[in-house]
Amino acid sequence: MSTKIDHTHDPRAQSWVSSANEPGAEFPIQNLPLGVFSSGGESAGRIGAAIGDQILDLTAALDGGLLPGLESQAAALHSDSLNLLMSHGASARLALRRAIFELLHVSNANVVSAARCLVPMSSARMHLPARVGDFTDFFTSIHHARRTGELSRPDVPVAPNFRNMPIGYHGRASSVVVSGTPCVRPRGQTGASAAAGQGYVPSQWLDFELEVGCFVGLGNSLGTTISIDDAESHMFGLCLVNDWSARDIQIWESYPLGPFLAKSFMTSVSPWVVTLDALAPFRVAAPTRGEDEPALPEGLTSPTHAAHGGISIALQVLLQTQAMRENGMEPVVLSQPRFEDQYWTLTQMLTHQTSNGCNLRTGDLLSSGTVSGPERENSGCLVELNAGGKEPMRLPSGETRLFLEDGDIIWLRGVCHRDGYRPIGFGECKAQILEEMK
Amino acid sequence: MSTKIDHTHDPRAQSWVSSANEPGAEFPIQNLPLGVFSSGGESAGRIGAAIGDQILDLTAALDGGLLPGLESQAAALHSDSLNLLMSHGASARLALRRAIFELLHVSNANVVSAARCLVPMSSARMHLPARVGDFTDFFTSIHHARRTGELSRPDVPVAPNFRNMPIGYHGRASSVVVSGTPCVRPRGQTGASAAAGQGYVPSQWLDFELEVGCFVGLGNSLGTTISIDDAESHMFGLCLVNDWSARDIQIWESYPLGPFLAKSFMTSVSPWVVTLDALAPFRVAAPTRGEDEPALPEGLTSPTHAAHGGISIALQVLLQTQAMRENGMEPVVLSQPRFEDQYWTLTQMLTHQTSNGCNLRTGDLLSSGTVSGPERENSGCLVELNAGGKEPMRLPSGETRLFLEDGDIIWLRGVCHRDGYRPIGFGECKAQILEEMK
Repeated sequence: MSTKIDHTHDPRAQSWVSSANEPGAEFPIQNLPLGVFSSGGESAGRIGAAIGDQILDLTAALDGGLLPGLESQAAALHSDSLNLLMSHGASARLALRRAIFELLHVSNANVVSAARCLVPMSSARMHLPARVGDFTDFFTSIHHARRTGELSRPDVPVAPNFRNMPIGYHGRASSVVVSGTPCVRPRGQTGASAAAGQGYVPSQWLDFELEVGCFVGLGNSLGTTISIDDAESHMFGLCLVNDWSARDIQIWESYPLGPFLAKSFMTSVSPWVVTLDALAPFRVAAPTRGEDEPALPEGLTSPTHAAHGGISIALQVLLQTQAMRENGMEPVVLSQPRFEDQYWTLTQMLTHQTSNGCNLRTGDLLSSGTVSGPERENSGCLVELNAGGKEPMRLPSGETRLFLEDGDIIWLRGVCHRDGYRPIGFGECKAQILEEMK
Repeated sequence: MSTKIDHTHDPRAQSWVSSANEPGAEFPIQNLPLGVFSSGGESAGRIGAAIGDQILDLTAALDGGLLPGLESQAAALHSDSLNLLMSHGASARLALRRAIFELLHVSNANVVSAARCLVPMSSARMHLPARVGDFTDFFTSIHHARRTGELSRPDVPVAPNFRNMPIGYHGRASSVVVSGTPCVRPRGQTGASAAAGQGYVPSQWLDFELEVGCFVGLGNSLGTTISIDDAESHMFGLCLVNDWSARDIQIWESYPLGPFLAKSFMTSVSPWVVTLDALAPFRVAAPTRGEDEPALPEGLTSPTHAAHGGISIALQVLLQTQAMRENGMEPVVLSQPRFEDQYWTLTQMLTHQTSNGCNLRTGDLLSSGTVSGPERENSGCLVELNAGGKEPMRLPSGETRLFLEDGDIIWLRGVCHRDGYRPIGFGECKAQILEEMK
């Protein structure tokens, strides 16, 4: 693995930004995720690091001489996306982390200058962190595969290929948007609309999918592969992904070429990219397999990967309806799956993606597919939680929900915990459902 | 439709570039396709128009004052891709066509200056014509759908959704390359390799797919749709596409999410983009349907589209093996389908793609999927021509071919014909198969 635990993970480390030290803060000094933001009505974004409830403006910090030794990253830090920074590789990323850590640490004597580089999150607008060249969506929860498979093919719910490789499909890159962008209910053809001669109708089965995404750092050339032990040097960092899905459109269109317009109307990502460096303490063993399962194919396993290929993340989906907001009710937790329950790791996904010589480019987004736990109540999408559209959820407001309704807000959240370490969070990936297009 | 027949389609028009006037020339003055080229060892490309066996360097022509009235397109013509030009819309594209036509017409008195802007095709290297943001591959030949469907599900070879909408899937944008780029035989998992515990092996069922692609000109915003009658104002021009396919990988990986690594190792496009203006004389009625077929859904038809939505293109696939080359034998024609035999038009594909609010961006590539004629001998891929891997072709060299072998060269070609008009061609989309990755 390319990342090691060092002093930036010391749980006792505190920042002079006091909000970062509060219990439950998602962005303590041990995290320092990167993103693109603007403030004061600017249209172009600039690069920042999250600390407590503030954003450290990295352009301003660099120009103010507060990030010594990072002169070679000046062009990247003056960019309006993370792509150039991502292309610099793992050692440049770690050098940046360490410089930001020193600047924000309580021992820094230069607090007055550094404080001038802070922008309150509450006054900032977040942008998409990277230009995404290609977006790949995988399908790596065996619990999700089994429960959705049982709906359409109860005899063989998990297809034979599932245990041999991380199944994936190409997603739509143009409609990857940052958290906060509203989700307009899509129109499309469904089996019912086609049978009735109605053509395109508003989707009635609008669903979320809780996923974890990985941004590619260094790419590779067409015709080359990336080995399992080299894969992590091509991974920059992680975010939360909501792969919005119109199930009624999906069921009708997906045979034989897979999901298309059921997904391409929008995919949301959380704005803060949690780097592999920040995640180092939360690495866990890759999933093991039973004796009745096929052995891992050569190329998708190694001793290092087996020991550390997984990442432990406690995930959450929350819902707040229009009625709940009007009655002052807090969002309700719908599901709490764990990322380490996936059958395949992000490292294996990246390796598999290049196994045929396909080239990855800096900024590409690889997403895990729905993260669903072993128990149905910890499923990462409604179509599992409602048993294929048959069992509506009862909400604390007295309402019921089968699929999403206009006005609903969905939040995805994720936090990494480990004994002896400070927890770090991903922030939120949020969107409100708006009524259908006119 | 946005394009009209005008004096640039006059079949009597001749160019002072004599090779453009020869019978069978694919790039007469009535065509003027656009592309990106370099010469003399330059690495960056510049924009040109094809005329006979020459390329008109449009940057040089503009800088030499030979393209009057196009000052507003200066930045686009100085670019290293067609994207900016594509974003200017249909009227700018037509103004450029007319200016190039006047410059290259025999009546031009300024031939000496203009001739200095010519670069022989034989000394130029062609580049990918546009930066492709997203690549969508459709599946719009009912003959291809039926013949491939019969292999896996003889009871219902054409799925019920096929006649209701143009089925498509997201392709891989990073591995779209220009004609001439060699195709390295991909490795991957197959059902047989998985059963034998072998993991990733070289594909043994490597195939081509003859397709016609459309580059998007003007895009649309997320959450908006493009109507069937507005769709052509968002189409810039067409090229040939070879959607290389590893059938053994495809069969194993595609269920349930569709093709992924069986396609993403490479997709080739022809370098010259034939504009919608050049294609205006070759427009034909959109396909009609029998009384036993579902009516066209509202949104995918209009009187204008019904009358002119199709495009007539005579296509060809040619093969030359290593042995044929060594024995001085010409390439053999494998198949000659016609583009107007597709069940759905490119206009319908673009409209359908945005029906859910998905945003198109300038330079996006929409491809038709395999173009196969009603007769099996005019299929656009080997897996149809060889009846699912069961009937090898016998070649004039005495060799047989089931799927592609190392050293094979595949050419795609396309020409538009119509009585009373000068035929125009697409040039070639060519690649040689190289042995597997090491």
